[in-house]
Amino acid sequence: SSSTDSTATKVQQLSVYELNERDRGSPAYLRLSQKTVNSLGDLVPFSNKLYTGDLKKRIGITAGLCILIKHEEEKKGDRYEAIYSFYFGDYGHIAVQGSYLTYEDTYLAVTGGSGIFAGVSGQVKLQQIIFPFKLFYTFYLKGIPDLPAELLVTAVPPSPTVEPAPEAKACEAGATVKNFTN
Amino acid sequence: SSSTDSTATKVQQLSVYELNERDRGSPAYLRLSQKTVNSLGDLVPFSNKLYTGDLKKRIGITAGLCILIKHEEEKKGDRYEAIYSFYFGDYGHIAVQGSYLTYEDTYLAVTGGSGIFAGVSGQVKLQQIIFPFKLFYTFYLKGIPDLPAELLVTAVPPSPTVEPAPEAKACEAGATVKNFTN
Amino acid sequence: SSSTDSTATKVQQLSVYELNERDRGSPAYLRLSQKTVNSLGDLVPFSNKLYTGDLKKRIGITAGLCILIKHEEEKKGDRYEAIYSFYFGDYGHIAVQGSYLTYEDTYLAVTGGSGIFAGVSGQVKLQQIIFPFKLFYTFYLKGIPDLPAELLVTAVPPSPTVEPAPEAKACEAGATVKNFTN
Repeated sequence: SSSTDSTATKVQQLSVYELNERDRGSPAYLRLSQKTVNSLGDLVPFSNKLYTGDLKKRIGITAGLCILIKHEEEKKGDRYEAIYSFYFGDYGHIAVQGSYLTYEDTYLAVTGGSGIFAGVSGQVKLQQIIFPFKLFYTFYLKGIPDLPAELLVTAVPPSPTVEPAPEAKACEAGATVKNFTN
Repeated sequence: SSSTDSTATKVQQLSVYELNERDRGSPAYLRLSQKTVNSLGDLVPFSNKLYTGDLKKRIGITAGLCILIKHEEEKKGDRYEAIYSFYFGDYGHIAVQGSYLTYEDTYLAVTGGSGIFAGVSGQVKLQQIIFPFKLFYTFYLKGIPDLPAELLVTAVPPSPTVEPAPEAKACEAGATVKNFTN
Repeated sequence: SSSTDSTATKVQQLSVYELNERDRGSPAYLRLSQKTVNSLGDLVPFSNKLYTGDLKKRIGITAGLCILIKHEEEKKGDRYEAIYSFYFGDYGHIAVQGSYLTYEDTYLAVTGGSGIFAGVSGQVKLQQIIFPFKLFYTFYLKGIPDLPAELLVTAVPPSPTVEPAPEAKACEAGATVKNFTN
């Protein structure tokens, strides 16, 4: 049927903000390399908060692991291999894997999902706004039914001054997705 | 062809049991947070045994990593981000990623597979029976040919008293899949 | 259209070499089990170099984590769960997950990708040539447009004596893919 064809081939775009509000003990930098400069061997479990692209609703959290791959002295930054998930409350989650560079935008692989994201594939653009506290993501998703209007909002353009709506930050009724992940 | 359409869109259901028989040194709780309560920074590599849903055949093992994300005091439990694989002997394996909550069932993403599971997508329901020793999984799989009858057995309903058949536990001939993973 | 059908169902084969030239501080064996023999609890972040199958061009790097699952005394080797990515410079990357056995070839799951590999699925055969310094991979990829000719070269058959072309090892102009990952 044409609806099946559409599900299989259509690319849907979805924007979210990941914000570290410094209240989750994240990131946990594990200096297992035992070296003074960031080095292969260091591991960084993390979990931040997730908001809709218009910053009006709290969605959930991110959760996962960054693996320090290489310190880039000349770029004043680091290369990580990042493996983590984005949690959307009752909607489900999206799993991703790819590089996180502290000095440059990257694209990560969308490796799968649950709930409304079951069977998803595609990629996601990671834009760093303020390291490592504010990030903006644009997902390019295939293989899933039409996303709900609540998630398909017009994004606030990324800038260092973006902040979630106070109601969303406070997780007030009407300012979260249903059963937002925390 | 209609067989191609069927492979692409059909959802196949597959049930398995994961049992920790306390003979693999698993889990290895690495308290890297150096805190007395489970905290972000702790990592938990693990590997348990895998049986068919009817508990009559040993299939293989699970293998992977749980990342402690958050201790939930009020729920008397923990949130983990889990990244692991299910090994099915000569049949191949299924990779998954998602949340493991010690106090609640979850759905994880199926991120890929090998052998008969090459190119698989979908999700898997995780039901905890006895923490952390007995778990029941129901996979919802897309994108692969029809699964073998040996795996599509009628599951024993999950309960705290379930046990593998003695022949399967002993890995006797006829009570394992071919070249079961160990 | 027939081109859509072809993208969805065609399997494309891609060969690459992963070489550890001992200049990236890799692997970092983290003996977190605190045991004298390799044991569950040990983690091994790693990053090696990636060359085309004909060894004439430097492509990029691998980056990720091996999780020690089981020491196999009788096989004089170890079972790892491996979660890592292959980086192809401007082309993008491929993420994989599955078992790495130090004593036997394996197939890993392709879990996703970015750039020209966005939306990819399939599996990859890992052939170990010299542990842990030389490996040969054959990817079987679905769901993506035709791969560029630069990557679809005739592979040098795997053997312990294979070496990258000196120009590729030196990353000279014309002997790398565009903006090769380093």
